[in-house]
Amino acid sequence: MDKLEMHHTLMAARARQKMSWDDLGQAVDRSPVWVASVCYGMNSAPPDIAQKLVQALGLEDDALVDAIKAYPTKTWDGAIPQDPLIYRLYEVVGVYGPTLKDVIQEKFGDGIMSAIDFSMDVEREQDPKGDRVKITMNGKFLPYKSW
Amino acid sequence: MDKLEMHHTLMAARARQKMSWDDLGQAVDRSPVWVASVCYGMNSAPPDIAQKLVQALGLEDDALVDAIKAYPTKTWDGAIPQDPLIYRLYEVVGVYGPTLKDVIQEKFGDGIMSAIDFSMDVEREQDPKGDRVKITMNGKFLPYKSW
Amino acid sequence: MDKLEMHHTLMAARARQKMSWDDLGQAVDRSPVWVASVCYGMNSAPPDIAQKLVQALGLEDDALVDAIKAYPTKTWDGAIPQDPLIYRLYEVVGVYGPTLKDVIQEKFGDGIMSAIDFSMDVEREQDPKGDRVKITMNGKFLPYKSW
Amino acid sequence: MDKLEMHHTLMAARARQKMSWDDLGQAVDRSPVWVASVCYGMNSAPPDIAQKLVQALGLEDDALVDAIKAYPTKTWDGAIPQDPLIYRLYEVVGVYGPTLKDVIQEKFGDGIMSAIDFSMDVEREQDPKGDRVKITMNGKFLPYKSW
Amino acid sequence: MDKLEMHHTLMAARARQKMSWDDLGQAVDRSPVWVASVCYGMNSAPPDIAQKLVQALGLEDDALVDAIKAYPTKTWDGAIPQDPLIYRLYEVVGVYGPTLKDVIQEKFGDGIMSAIDFSMDVEREQDPKGDRVKITMNGKFLPYKSW
Amino acid sequence: MDKLEMHHTLMAARARQKMSWDDLGQAVDRSPVWVASVCYGMNSAPPDIAQKLVQALGLEDDALVDAIKAYPTKTWDGAIPQDPLIYRLYEVVGVYGPTLKDVIQEKFGDGIMSAIDFSMDVEREQDPKGDRVKITMNGKFLPYKSW
Amino acid sequence: MDKLEMHHTLMAARARQKMSWDDLGQAVDRSPVWVASVCYGMNSAPPDIAQKLVQALGLEDDALVDAIKAYPTKTWDGAIPQDPLIYRLYEVVGVYGPTLKDVIQEKFGDGIMSAIDFSMDVEREQDPKGDRVKITMNGKFLPYKSW
Amino acid sequence: MDKLEMHHTLMAARARQKMSWDDLGQAVDRSPVWVASVCYGMNSAPPDIAQKLVQALGLEDDALVDAIKAYPTKTWDGAIPQDPLIYRLYEVVGVYGPTLKDVIQEKFGDGIMSAIDFSMDVEREQDPKGDRVKITMNGKFLPYKSW
Amino acid sequence: MDKLEMHHTLMAARARQKMSWDDLGQAVDRSPVWVASVCYGMNSAPPDIAQKLVQALGLEDDALVDAIKAYPTKTWDGAIPQDPLIYRLYEVVGVYGPTLKDVIQEKFGDGIMSAIDFSMDVEREQDPKGDRVKITMNGKFLPYKSW
Amino acid sequence: MDKLEMHHTLMAARARQKMSWDDLGQAVDRSPVWVASVCYGMNSAPPDIAQKLVQALGLEDDALVDAIKAYPTKTWDGAIPQDPLIYRLYEVVGVYGPTLKDVIQEKFGDGIMSAIDFSMDVEREQDPKGDRVKITMNGKFLPYKSW
Repeated sequence: MDKLEMHHTLMAARARQKMSWDDLGQAVDRSPVWVASVCYGMNSAPPDIAQKLVQALGLEDDALVDAIKAYPTKTWDGAIPQDPLIYRLYEVVGVYGPTLKDVIQEKFGDGIMSAIDFSMDVEREQDPKGDRVKITMNGKFLPYKSW
Repeated sequence: MDKLEMHHTLMAARARQKMSWDDLGQAVDRSPVWVASVCYGMNSAPPDIAQKLVQALGLEDDALVDAIKAYPTKTWDGAIPQDPLIYRLYEVVGVYGPTLKDVIQEKFGDGIMSAIDFSMDVEREQDPKGDRVKITMNGKFLPYKSW
Repeated sequence: MDKLEMHHTLMAARARQKMSWDDLGQAVDRSPVWVASVCYGMNSAPPDIAQKLVQALGLEDDALVDAIKAYPTKTWDGAIPQDPLIYRLYEVVGVYGPTLKDVIQEKFGDGIMSAIDFSMDVEREQDPKGDRVKITMNGKFLPYKSW
Repeated sequence: MDKLEMHHTLMAARARQKMSWDDLGQAVDRSPVWVASVCYGMNSAPPDIAQKLVQALGLEDDALVDAIKAYPTKTWDGAIPQDPLIYRLYEVVGVYGPTLKDVIQEKFGDGIMSAIDFSMDVEREQDPKGDRVKITMNGKFLPYKSW
Repeated sequence: MDKLEMHHTLMAARARQKMSWDDLGQAVDRSPVWVASVCYGMNSAPPDIAQKLVQALGLEDDALVDAIKAYPTKTWDGAIPQDPLIYRLYEVVGVYGPTLKDVIQEKFGDGIMSAIDFSMDVEREQDPKGDRVKITMNGKFLPYKSW
Repeated sequence: MDKLEMHHTLMAARARQKMSWDDLGQAVDRSPVWVASVCYGMNSAPPDIAQKLVQALGLEDDALVDAIKAYPTKTWDGAIPQDPLIYRLYEVVGVYGPTLKDVIQEKFGDGIMSAIDFSMDVEREQDPKGDRVKITMNGKFLPYKSW
Repeated sequence: MDKLEMHHTLMAARARQKMSWDDLGQAVDRSPVWVASVCYGMNSAPPDIAQKLVQALGLEDDALVDAIKAYPTKTWDGAIPQDPLIYRLYEVVGVYGPTLKDVIQEKFGDGIMSAIDFSMDVEREQDPKGDRVKITMNGKFLPYKSW
Repeated sequence: MDKLEMHHTLMAARARQKMSWDDLGQAVDRSPVWVASVCYGMNSAPPDIAQKLVQALGLEDDALVDAIKAYPTKTWDGAIPQDPLIYRLYEVVGVYGPTLKDVIQEKFGDGIMSAIDFSMDVEREQDPKGDRVKITMNGKFLPYKSW
Repeated sequence: MDKLEMHHTLMAARARQKMSWDDLGQAVDRSPVWVASVCYGMNSAPPDIAQKLVQALGLEDDALVDAIKAYPTKTWDGAIPQDPLIYRLYEVVGVYGPTLKDVIQEKFGDGIMSAIDFSMDVEREQDPKGDRVKITMNGKFLPYKSW
Repeated sequence: MDKLEMHHTLMAARARQKMSWDDLGQAVDRSPVWVASVCYGMNSAPPDIAQKLVQALGLEDDALVDAIKAYPTKTWDGAIPQDPLIYRLYEVVGVYGPTLKDVIQEKFGDGIMSAIDFSMDVEREQDPKGDRVKITMNGKFLPYKSW
């Protein structure tokens, strides 16, 4: 079973079970965003969590568990995303990229924010003028070093 | 004076004055990230703030103030960024884009996070295993509507 | 059922029923352009309208209703469209883009026209020298703000 | 004098004279959007209007008038625009292109909307929930014919 | 039946019937180039011609007639064509594009040659040094107008 | 003197002398389209014609004559042209490319129309419904051969 | 039968018959490179050779003979080839292209080497330091002419 | 002095001295194609040849000699060449690439023709039907090896 | 059997047999990296090794052995890789490419490192601050020569 | 002084001083590859090393020292490199990318080799059949973690 088939299987089960990402996150004791990324085939899960995930969704299938544990090849369609929700994030990187580089490197020195030793969260912020999406990214700072 | 000349003028003054983005943010009573984006020519400042910014940097020049107030054409080099710090952000959008779309739309319904009614913050998080970069994005949710 | 299969099902039913987009718009009490965009899989419909749409087309199928309600991932083939009708619209954006930016921002300040809080209409204008296509776009102005 | 130099000359004079696009449109008896497109070098003006335009801006220069009358080579940077205001228009073409093709061709038959025999208008629509941008495009329908 | 299946059906029948494009053009009283473009799915035929075309090819099939009448979405593979015959035409546009623009606009004023109100012909010209291909394009001139 | 400088020199002289392409073609006893392509730097002229061309334009300059005789490197901006007049020609190649290939190869066998042993003409065709542009391309047929 | 199926059929038969390209070239009295290009679907063969080719490979199939005679649409994957053997040829064109243009045009005048009236050969040259590949290309010179 | 300035200096001297590539090849005792590639900045020359080259062209300049000896960074404009002479070579690689791979690897085993341990020659072949360009490429075969 | 099917067959057998790349390398007396590249279809194996490989994996299939011996067409998806592990290698080439060129050519003269007469190794280096990946590339230096 | 001017200044001084990268590495007590990357503007040096570097090259200039210490924006021309030496490295990533991913992740688990906490070395390996280039890359393994 490859990651695509795994994705369709997990999404169908989630719909049948009417479980939200928050429910699923609680069921496997992980963040909802990370669990979603596993179900989208963009992260592998350790064996125990893969097992819990399958159980939480009322499934039972060794090939499915193997697929969840498999190390994914991470790729995406379209160097420039088209879906408006995803494009807006791309636009933020384009518009604010050099700004973020300057602000981060002033605070930390020459280096980068890791996208591997990294976590991410999404919250709904109540606002009378219209609720707001709050995305938090948290990555280890990796300094360049001379050698 | 165009935005590029404005950028070089402001960056040189900032270096001379040895002001950090935090210092400059405080001087004009705005977030350091937003002030940096203004100095990078990616946002326009209202007249009073443009004035304060120029003063804080020990400059005095009407053409410079006009350049800071001008509405920028926002563009960036390279559909796919190459600098490692900026590329990592692009990679995050590629790897987690569909995940974020699903998590946000489950929480809010069909729509997007605005990149216009939007703010952003960068913090340094102390960590014994290596300090971490924390980026917070905050954008109004805009629902699709039928018509 | 994914959006593509939904599209083919709805288009075939529309042909069988010989309903125009105007007919279909009236049947679900929405604009013909919006209804067409739903049938092309580019917008999701609220439950009641999805139901009406299926009934108007003489169909009855829960999976179809679910597909109509599903939040679409909006993508399109070809960064530069090739079909002459669609290319002409692209050409208008290329030729008049900076002009529109200047005219709109002079009238409204620094900001954009939303493509989300947005509606669109198409009319046929009688003209002795050859009838004309009139497209109206209507989007909320979103101002950039400092933070 | 090429179109780029012409553009900078006209924009500087417009700023000096503090004339809006509406003012300039009235001064030459043409639509503000069309006048702006002339000043951006994307349309040529007939001799009498080129003359009036230069006078309205307090300029006097035969080379400038010649540049305004010259037939432009229309090109634009970036197959996919990056500035958010212009990108939103591109997104509208991407998301709604096939929808518009179907709606227009149902109303008119096989053919296209001309981008040459074409005009365009921008209005500000008052709205208590936030004013709206209204763009109207008006192009002659050109039918495909057999031969 | 989509345009691709229609294309294969018509080409197979043409081979069976051993009809040249000239034969087929005569049978439906249209130009061979236009008829070929219909069989390649790049133009729609009016109902009576669609009917004649199907009969001329010894076919009888309502779905086929419908496919021939359907308004095509015109697309092509490869922004830059690779087949040498088609590439040479592309090269002609590249090499002579600005030349043609200048010559046409000198003769007609600011405007374009329509590719919609357009016809095309191919002839074989006898030549002792090797026969020659003669392609004639004929399109309505569309002037840009002020508004 | 390179081809670009040559182009600007020749175009300025042509404007001063108020000579049309037809005038210039007659002066050097060649087709107006070919003469224009020489002035645009896309073809080299034989020595005697280069001489005549310079004289017809009231110029006298050995470096200019050398530049006209130089064999050009033929390149063009943009794989996909943007100017509407040139784009329409590109669109014709895209839409009708496979049609032309089939029609030509049926008439001539497997081979191509040369873009080197090639000539081209532009005429204005009077038409009460709007005058028409007539472009004629004439290239030697080159058959593929086995070896 | 299309060219791809023809290719697989011919290659499988060649493997079964253990015939080299030299053997096959001799069997049909043509160059091995040309015969290979026919089997790869990049050239059409005249009827008698198509017949001989099929016989030499121990096949008998009218549809196959027709496929071999069909005029191919020549296309290739990847504007920039990736396979190292083919990339090296691309690199040679990139590195030596302007050099070859200059050397050829000095010898022949303004014009090109035809890729249609063209043949090609591959030989193995013995060399104590490692054998060498010798590729010979032979194309008719086509001069540009004025008209 | 960089390679571009070197190129212009050498080409101008060659024109002044009226030396063909053959003359220049003889003067430095190397092949005309290789000498041309050095003058185009695509190969470095060993010190003695750089010296001879400069003398043959009646120049004397240490910086020029250094520029000729410098190891070039080999790049070219346009992944797909546009000049017709160079494009035809690119087309040959596209059309015949897989054919050449098969023929070469049948003769030599799994491996490639080196583009580094490589030489190239151009000859004019007399032909009553029009002279022909003969290009010979000669590169060491490099086998893939297991390790 | 093509290389893709071969790849899936070998990977499935490897999983069933629970053999690491080191195990498999030892079984066929070759480096684990090279064996992996064979199983990924990017190198061909000599007959005896192909045989051993199949045996080591508990398979027996002549078509499989033939597929392993077949000379591959080496291609890869995505000019710019997206998977983070592979992208980091691409980034290293981008960031350090000119540096490596200078350092290598200073040590060896004008030439390149062969990617054909080439081997590669991966080791795990213990490190208290986190283990490290050590990749060694070893390619023959190929000097450019005059001719 | 920007990184480009810094690069030219340092390279000219290095040529004047006839210092190899090994000499320069010893002078500042760092690896020759890293020092070269600093001189190419792809890494920043700490203050003491920047000082030593300038002294070793017989220069004295505060602006130069500042430029060496500045954090670079790392970019490169050409998504696909063209220079043969650099292209071969790109080809290695393309051909062996998935192989390396599999071998590394089998040894370390799901994660990547850092290109930031990274060093690199180049050695000349004597070989009677032709000396060899040995490149060693050494990067910290970064594991993906759940959150």
